[in-house]
Amino acid sequence: MEKLSARWEHLVTSSKFLRFVDIILRGIGQVMFQNNPLSGALFLAAVGWGSYAAGVPQVAIAGLVAVVVATLTAQWLHADEASLTSGLYGYNAFLVGLALATFLAPGALIWAYVVLGAAVSVVAMLGIANAVGPWGVSPLTFPFVLTTWLLLLATYGFSGLTGTALRSGRVVSAFQPYEASPLNIVDLAQGVLHSISQVFLKGSGVAALLLLVGLAVNSRVAAAFAFGGAILAIATAHVLGAESALITGGLLGFSPVLTAIALGTVFYQPSWRVAAYTALATVFTVIAQSALNVALTPFAIPALTAPFVLVSWLFLLPRRSVGSRTGASAP
Amino acid sequence: MEKLSARWEHLVTSSKFLRFVDIILRGIGQVMFQNNPLSGALFLAAVGWGSYAAGVPQVAIAGLVAVVVATLTAQWLHADEASLTSGLYGYNAFLVGLALATFLAPGALIWAYVVLGAAVSVVAMLGIANAVGPWGVSPLTFPFVLTTWLLLLATYGFSGLTGTALRSGRVVSAFQPYEASPLNIVDLAQGVLHSISQVFLKGSGVAALLLLVGLAVNSRVAAAFAFGGAILAIATAHVLGAESALITGGLLGFSPVLTAIALGTVFYQPSWRVAAYTALATVFTVIAQSALNVALTPFAIPALTAPFVLVSWLFLLPRRSVGSRTGASAP
Amino acid sequence: MEKLSARWEHLVTSSKFLRFVDIILRGIGQVMFQNNPLSGALFLAAVGWGSYAAGVPQVAIAGLVAVVVATLTAQWLHADEASLTSGLYGYNAFLVGLALATFLAPGALIWAYVVLGAAVSVVAMLGIANAVGPWGVSPLTFPFVLTTWLLLLATYGFSGLTGTALRSGRVVSAFQPYEASPLNIVDLAQGVLHSISQVFLKGSGVAALLLLVGLAVNSRVAAAFAFGGAILAIATAHVLGAESALITGGLLGFSPVLTAIALGTVFYQPSWRVAAYTALATVFTVIAQSALNVALTPFAIPALTAPFVLVSWLFLLPRRSVGSRTGASAP
Repeated sequence: MEKLSARWEHLVTSSKFLRFVDIILRGIGQVMFQNNPLSGALFLAAVGWGSYAAGVPQVAIAGLVAVVVATLTAQWLHADEASLTSGLYGYNAFLVGLALATFLAPGALIWAYVVLGAAVSVVAMLGIANAVGPWGVSPLTFPFVLTTWLLLLATYGFSGLTGTALRSGRVVSAFQPYEASPLNIVDLAQGVLHSISQVFLKGSGVAALLLLVGLAVNSRVAAAFAFGGAILAIATAHVLGAESALITGGLLGFSPVLTAIALGTVFYQPSWRVAAYTALATVFTVIAQSALNVALTPFAIPALTAPFVLVSWLFLLPRRSVGSRTGASAP
Repeated sequence: MEKLSARWEHLVTSSKFLRFVDIILRGIGQVMFQNNPLSGALFLAAVGWGSYAAGVPQVAIAGLVAVVVATLTAQWLHADEASLTSGLYGYNAFLVGLALATFLAPGALIWAYVVLGAAVSVVAMLGIANAVGPWGVSPLTFPFVLTTWLLLLATYGFSGLTGTALRSGRVVSAFQPYEASPLNIVDLAQGVLHSISQVFLKGSGVAALLLLVGLAVNSRVAAAFAFGGAILAIATAHVLGAESALITGGLLGFSPVLTAIALGTVFYQPSWRVAAYTALATVFTVIAQSALNVALTPFAIPALTAPFVLVSWLFLLPRRSVGSRTGASAP
Repeated sequence: MEKLSARWEHLVTSSKFLRFVDIILRGIGQVMFQNNPLSGALFLAAVGWGSYAAGVPQVAIAGLVAVVVATLTAQWLHADEASLTSGLYGYNAFLVGLALATFLAPGALIWAYVVLGAAVSVVAMLGIANAVGPWGVSPLTFPFVLTTWLLLLATYGFSGLTGTALRSGRVVSAFQPYEASPLNIVDLAQGVLHSISQVFLKGSGVAALLLLVGLAVNSRVAAAFAFGGAILAIATAHVLGAESALITGGLLGFSPVLTAIALGTVFYQPSWRVAAYTALATVFTVIAQSALNVALTPFAIPALTAPFVLVSWLFLLPRRSVGSRTGASAP
């Protein structure tokens, strides 16, 4: 593996085109904090497979277009070179592209929307990094969340763009008990896998396995925390009595998976103390996911990874108390 | 009184258990900014009486459990020793416990929820203190508000926890004139007392008197500002034509009471100028309380003390203009 | 023009009353970033004409009362002298006064509300300036937005104040295609002019022309960016298929106009690069305006200039990447 990696590095330094490809792949890898082109390629394969299997190939294409536009925008804005080559201006745009193509109906204007969203996501990344930098925290996926929320909300006022996957708003009402469909171990296992693939807005076991491999080639600890985080999230949601479809679809688990990777392997030095702290944060991310799902009901937009951002910021801010912090420059 | 206090201090230094009790009581005292175990004991008595009289003894117990869990969590996280022994990691948890047991139906899971909420409130306190520290302001009760909002919102998606005291969401509609029930002086006096006891989510005149005594044993000025703030809030709400039930229940007055204590006696050096500034802030907290009550209608959650936090932050930020600031380390 | 200006300056230094008038006029000028009493006088004439023509003269009077109260409040709070004489504590209050008188029914209490809102807008200005100062950005019109949102929301709970121009809340629903009324060039031209006058909450072509003259007497570049921003906003809204009435009424264009002036002429040194960056921000402000219109539907309050503040902050935060920044002390 290392030999392969060294060889790729050599190729990249000799070709402007391959350097660009390298940045694109690292950008996709950074969605799960992996600054590694092979991880990015495997993540892209997972998204490609998930989009193809679901009959929406334009979703993967929109993601790819967005990360290309974002990289060009970052170059135009003279963004920090080291961050740029690590893919830090690409991961938010990749998610913006996936989300717009997932939630909006196909059409001509959607591509203009993807290009606009990708460019703005870079401005948002630069701006939010400056804003939260003094607190010693990273923007995480907040640029993606903010840009996509605004773009999706705006479509309710535009006849040129239509939300297909967006529901009409409702006010918050008392919990409607779901029909009895006791979850068996297979359902729960599916929930665990989909919790991982939903990080890229996909419900697919194959995609989840590709993502785990993509994590493992760069960091086995990250893969373990992603898997463990997904199991803990599904168990928490099940004990609290969440809706079956949300559990098996992984829709309460993708934010906790990101919280587990971020706190457990990226921003804190791994230790038992940090593992316990990460477990608390992961459980609370399930609560926050349910809370934001409810809070966004009247607005008819999805929570995206906002619960991950909110809880991770909260648990990263008191870092001095918790343990020595890595000097990670990852998102 | 001072002799008693000195004796208690002596006892506390000689016993680990009494030190822990001291921290718990100071934590309860800090809800109203009083770093004094006797104030805390009187506040606890007020809450105990209010819970017992309303037939919900579990509310006081949940508060006590939460402040114990929070203190243990703060010790585990190596929180700042001086802040810890002053009770600064306990007051938010005490309110979290009271609120969860007030708004959710009794059951097994609620105790797990109280423990989780108490632990997270400490992380939130540490994080928010770091976040707002550079602005020279304190977290106030925002850790309580944020943690409780997320925990309450999430229950709408969990069948294991049910909100009893939570209403279904509604969209904001034009004001429905309440039935004519002209308030007499007794109603208004009740509103003043309940404005004080609602700081601890209780509508009880006896509790209010115990709270005033608890304030007075540590600071007569604080007791005076609490009482004056309540009167000003009730008068403002009455003149603006707020709903009678909200006025007499103290539900528009508890946030202004906290604003009056915080600005008038804790964070600014008392003076006529500061008193006028505090009066402006207190009146505006009534507006903010009504505004947040309305804004949270679609989400079916209570505003808690968010209006106090919002207005106090706004009026503390320009401190350089207003007058010399005390070096208060209270919340 | 310069001779006139020098003569006015001379008069102002010799009379306390004229100094006060000068501050009031500069405060009105600062709504569009012009620290110039003649600009302010022309803006006031535009508002006066718009209010008179619409049969609501109290709107202009409320604005004037508010800016007077705000100036006195700023003096009482010992606000920074240079900022005060530049009108920086007046522009938010002027907008608060216009908005309250526009959205609320006439009555006795409304004048108390205007005075209260004007005073609080100064505290908000001081506080928000301290809060966002470390990020190198200005409060813009956020003090106006925050104060007015709270004051308007609160009225739904007060029988003493009634919103006439406020709609009841609705949940977000799928886009209702508007009746076919193809916009011709005259409609679009009206939309451009009203986009400029709606900065002061007026839909009036005459007011728009007075505002453009008011801009031009102090800065022809600002007038050009305001006009160009309005055209770009109307074109964007039209292409995306926004509702005809919103386009022709200028209701999707006033925030983009402010974004164009702020980014293109106040906070960045004009250049082609900055012009392109400003164009991106201006287009995105149209999206943000539509998004916030939708997001605020359940709360039944208007977005005011929040989209301008949000997008301008986002595009000002990464300033190091974009180009040398002017040392502008304008809002």
